[in-house]
Amino acid sequence: MRLATRANGAPDGELIVVSEDGARAVAVGGRWLSLLQALGDWSAAEVDLRNLATRLAAGQGEPIDPGSLRAPLPRSWQWLDGSAFQTHADLMQVAFQTDSIRSDKPLMYQGLSDRFYGPFDPVPFRSEADGIDFEGEFGVIVDAVPMGTNAAEAMSYIRLIVQINDWSLRNLAVAEMKTGFGWIQAKPPCSMAPFAVTPDSLGAAWHDGRVCLDLVIDWNEKRFGSANGREMGFGFHELVAHAAATRDLVAGTIIGSGTVANADYAKVGSSCIAERRAIEVIADGRPGTGFMAFGDRVRIQAQMPNGEQPFGAIAQKVVPISR
Amino acid sequence: MRLATRANGAPDGELIVVSEDGARAVAVGGRWLSLLQALGDWSAAEVDLRNLATRLAAGQGEPIDPGSLRAPLPRSWQWLDGSAFQTHADLMQVAFQTDSIRSDKPLMYQGLSDRFYGPFDPVPFRSEADGIDFEGEFGVIVDAVPMGTNAAEAMSYIRLIVQINDWSLRNLAVAEMKTGFGWIQAKPPCSMAPFAVTPDSLGAAWHDGRVCLDLVIDWNEKRFGSANGREMGFGFHELVAHAAATRDLVAGTIIGSGTVANADYAKVGSSCIAERRAIEVIADGRPGTGFMAFGDRVRIQAQMPNGEQPFGAIAQKVVPISR
Repeated sequence: MRLATRANGAPDGELIVVSEDGARAVAVGGRWLSLLQALGDWSAAEVDLRNLATRLAAGQGEPIDPGSLRAPLPRSWQWLDGSAFQTHADLMQVAFQTDSIRSDKPLMYQGLSDRFYGPFDPVPFRSEADGIDFEGEFGVIVDAVPMGTNAAEAMSYIRLIVQINDWSLRNLAVAEMKTGFGWIQAKPPCSMAPFAVTPDSLGAAWHDGRVCLDLVIDWNEKRFGSANGREMGFGFHELVAHAAATRDLVAGTIIGSGTVANADYAKVGSSCIAERRAIEVIADGRPGTGFMAFGDRVRIQAQMPNGEQPFGAIAQKVVPISR
Repeated sequence: MRLATRANGAPDGELIVVSEDGARAVAVGGRWLSLLQALGDWSAAEVDLRNLATRLAAGQGEPIDPGSLRAPLPRSWQWLDGSAFQTHADLMQVAFQTDSIRSDKPLMYQGLSDRFYGPFDPVPFRSEADGIDFEGEFGVIVDAVPMGTNAAEAMSYIRLIVQINDWSLRNLAVAEMKTGFGWIQAKPPCSMAPFAVTPDSLGAAWHDGRVCLDLVIDWNEKRFGSANGREMGFGFHELVAHAAATRDLVAGTIIGSGTVANADYAKVGSSCIAERRAIEVIADGRPGTGFMAFGDRVRIQAQMPNGEQPFGAIAQKVVPISR
């Protein structure tokens, strides 16, 4: 089942169920005006949503206007982003010239969740000098998870899977990281691809709490990377359990994988510019690629083996803020 | 003006305006069912709320049932906690045996905001072995703040002032801090004192973006500290500007001062146990005070020079989680 959120003037938008080809949709309405509301009573909502999905499969529904699509969750109460790909961690250590992080637990920070940009929104930044970078990721949206839930139990709380661009300002990141407090200025709002999907809809590509799909990234219409999500060092269920160790997780909590990265980056490329720069440092002693400029475009979409794009595409342009 | 939130079964509770002596209240209702709603359109809401405050001052209203009071914001979209007291930073460096943090910017992390415990709620933890500690703080609640707002401008976006207990699990904190990602497991939900007050209601005690009041803390009915808020190295307006450098702040964002601490801690004591332990390390080479045990109680209230308590008191007991 695919879900999306259509702009309707309300802060949380309007929940719609989307056909499996991403072309048609029906509005949900009733008790489930928004996805956040549906997540608050998922077992009841899911019955209604799957009924609508069945009607869509039978040919009902209206064509989708892509321009009306927002992030599936335009805001939520909690966004916890992991860094579960070891290759990303290793390369960022080179990029940031920092010591290796020693931890037997997943790496995770809490980021801003009051706004997720829609898939086609222009994304405003104050300055190119901050080092504007994309980070292609997968994420899960969970139901309410009680404190102390273990990893095996956590799997059953994963309701939806999403695709995220975790925008990052690299030239602000190292100084914040060195305080130990995590990132505030280096992590502006993220963007989300239009469709949130249930785990079953990914078939075999959802395996051991990992999204085993290539995440295809184009920067200014040029292929930049197509790393696969299967190399997560911790599965999403382990990230959920880590997050829930000392807190209840509120329904609608979004948990990110961190930048998708593969050991064979020479072949598949990268999901963020900072990694490519680190690879250049390793090869040439210095980075050769700059960060994004105003007007630059990035396109991110995961691909099924048959070419289908379950989350749709993020396709955005970087622009200066206007005050 | 004092505001509070009464339990009514809804997630955000019911907004009430409270008399200056904290004894009586009127429900607001209408467009401003909750404080979060009022903050979303503050210029309109404030007129209505001040009218009710005038009627309270004239003797209207009903007695408050303290047991019905929740946190003024039982949840919000964003909680950013600073660490603005240099004495706290210096002592935590001793407590955590970490290097001095070099930063010319305020220290700040993003914590969970989907739940703030009410002032009298028992607070559940999984284990005493995690090192349960209180942290007495002040905080501000801001209106929507545009990205790039400077410190001078930021002052005018501060709508309300609150008093917070930032519960911390010290034995999980150092390992998380060393990752550079900030705290997840070490920072469970905070608690809030019952009353949120407008800056004008503090009179001269609100000065240069600082709450110049003693924060009186009792641990198991024994005086633990009474540090004053005036020694913040950065004022709240500077913390707001720091947070808004690369993001718009959503209305209802709560920004914390970090643990209130004074250079003359020998006289005024501390606002968290970790600091007292650091002071013991400096004096005796090792900490003598343990962290909290299940059943322990903490009471936190700021006091005006005339003895009034503008935020009311946080009075809580630490309990084990029940699953």
